[in-house]
Amino acid sequence: MAIATHQHLEQIHSTQNALDKLQDLVRDDLLEVNRTILDRMQSPVALIPQLAGYLISSGGKRLRPVLTLLSAQMCDYKGQNHIPLAACVEFIHTATLLHDDVVDDSSLRRGIESANAVWGNQASVLVGDFLFSRSFQIMVECGSLRVLEILSNTSAIIAEGEVQQLANTNNLDITEDDCLSVITAKTAQLFAAACEIGAVVAEQPERTSQSLANFGLNFGMGFQLIDDLIDYSASDKTIGKAVGHDFREGKVTLPVLMAYQKGKQQDRDFWIRTIKDGDQQDGDLKLATALMQQSGTFEEVKNRARGYISAACDELACFPESENKQALIDAAKFCVSRVY
Amino acid sequence: MAIATHQHLEQIHSTQNALDKLQDLVRDDLLEVNRTILDRMQSPVALIPQLAGYLISSGGKRLRPVLTLLSAQMCDYKGQNHIPLAACVEFIHTATLLHDDVVDDSSLRRGIESANAVWGNQASVLVGDFLFSRSFQIMVECGSLRVLEILSNTSAIIAEGEVQQLANTNNLDITEDDCLSVITAKTAQLFAAACEIGAVVAEQPERTSQSLANFGLNFGMGFQLIDDLIDYSASDKTIGKAVGHDFREGKVTLPVLMAYQKGKQQDRDFWIRTIKDGDQQDGDLKLATALMQQSGTFEEVKNRARGYISAACDELACFPESENKQALIDAAKFCVSRVY
Repeated sequence: MAIATHQHLEQIHSTQNALDKLQDLVRDDLLEVNRTILDRMQSPVALIPQLAGYLISSGGKRLRPVLTLLSAQMCDYKGQNHIPLAACVEFIHTATLLHDDVVDDSSLRRGIESANAVWGNQASVLVGDFLFSRSFQIMVECGSLRVLEILSNTSAIIAEGEVQQLANTNNLDITEDDCLSVITAKTAQLFAAACEIGAVVAEQPERTSQSLANFGLNFGMGFQLIDDLIDYSASDKTIGKAVGHDFREGKVTLPVLMAYQKGKQQDRDFWIRTIKDGDQQDGDLKLATALMQQSGTFEEVKNRARGYISAACDELACFPESENKQALIDAAKFCVSRVY
Repeated sequence: MAIATHQHLEQIHSTQNALDKLQDLVRDDLLEVNRTILDRMQSPVALIPQLAGYLISSGGKRLRPVLTLLSAQMCDYKGQNHIPLAACVEFIHTATLLHDDVVDDSSLRRGIESANAVWGNQASVLVGDFLFSRSFQIMVECGSLRVLEILSNTSAIIAEGEVQQLANTNNLDITEDDCLSVITAKTAQLFAAACEIGAVVAEQPERTSQSLANFGLNFGMGFQLIDDLIDYSASDKTIGKAVGHDFREGKVTLPVLMAYQKGKQQDRDFWIRTIKDGDQQDGDLKLATALMQQSGTFEEVKNRARGYISAACDELACFPESENKQALIDAAKFCVSRVY
């Protein structure tokens, strides 16, 4: 297994490079965003900065706010509103994670105990509500109704996606489109919004902001498809959350649906028992992963993800070649290489 | 006990009168608000209107949206934005109730099973998030940054109040001010905002909108103080939720804190065992209520509530006498008479 390990390390290295590069290009702005986040999560109610700060400082990649900053930079924005708005994007993302972990009953996030595991579900629900409200307060201060429109629409769509995902649990009769709708709503829309508002604050024409939004949307689709694969392929340590969590929760992600639909009767019976009926035994996760590999599901989902990433990169054609543009393309392409 | 029963019926009757009167004065607008609520809680995700509709149509009094409508009417508003904004206020209130019932693990609300008891905590958290986001979408459509500011500030303060209330659980060392801060944040601020935005859409001078906001704030304080008393004094059927719920949850509301602080050592030991240590036995709720009565806590909290209601009514002095104004005053005064 020496080669696999070597390859794994190379991939981690390239991750670092692609995301580090993205961060490097907006380094000063990102420091300001981090300061804004720390400043605006404060409250006289001590539990709020404690709990929010725990998750926010736990080593997330700040990918979404970085997209806002880079998008604004590509649009030659000279103002300062991209900073607080990037913080808004991270607050909305953080609020979603807090509520997600309550809904999924998760105990691990970013390699450490999840906030709900430390402070309880109640505090996680309420602090999520606070961060969400605070993000709208900050948007109001920035004064752009268009940004408020984009992020309130996005928040509603995210909630719809999360409810739909919950309703799809244990249901193997859903379609691929159903799976993709959930991914679009719960992940891709926020990527799209993060990119779009960078162009909106820079008062770019609709065509430009739409290209950046479409880049983000496709990037987000590819990102989430790979995330769903990783739940079956990685080790806990690599991804910083419990591998097989989706499996144990009976979530019907695209890899599960494809492996079920491609499977012979015996395989289908396995998915029905473990996902539909929720009857899981030791070794079932390993078998699920093996079935995904044998059926070619891994490769097919990766190919789908590559398709979205390719579409994402095409959306940037209207921008001249630049270090910023190349870094966005490299970061998007990297996301497909995350499967270990 | 014939007299008490008679008095009880009279009070129910006067409730009907005071709140019916309030609703009567804005009847057509309220019908529009109800239509807007039904229309805007729709989603392609079926579970959302199912769950939201269950709570929204379960016979709430629509007190907060009625305050917005009546406030706009008192300010001679001729436009239509008060309708969707009153719906926003109800959505925010409903989202808060959904999350509250998850946090409190409640099984009863408005006399029927709570939404989380029917659909589970997960769905209640996410549908609450949806309603919250939807309310901001509607505000954006109305286009008033000032209204967005008022309601995003209010939402953040509500969340802070809820977190503080959670942090105060089982803690008998908090002060009266701590209790009042929680009430202000979790209840009074939304009453204030509901009233204020009626004046803001009507483009009234700051002085007028501030008077209405202060009316709402004081009304909300009186309303919540009485609500906290009712948890110890009513029957389940009368209030539509489980009596003694706060007691069982170890919530340190003003009645509890006063009874504890006024009590002799033996009484204090009772509160320490039941509230601080959470060690409760059959009959403890009855004893808690008796201690509140003996110590004069009931009367004192009622007097406090009357003080707030009186301050609320004073805030309306800048408005000429009118049926609208009198109805607001009667509704506020009625709230103190809700203790059975």
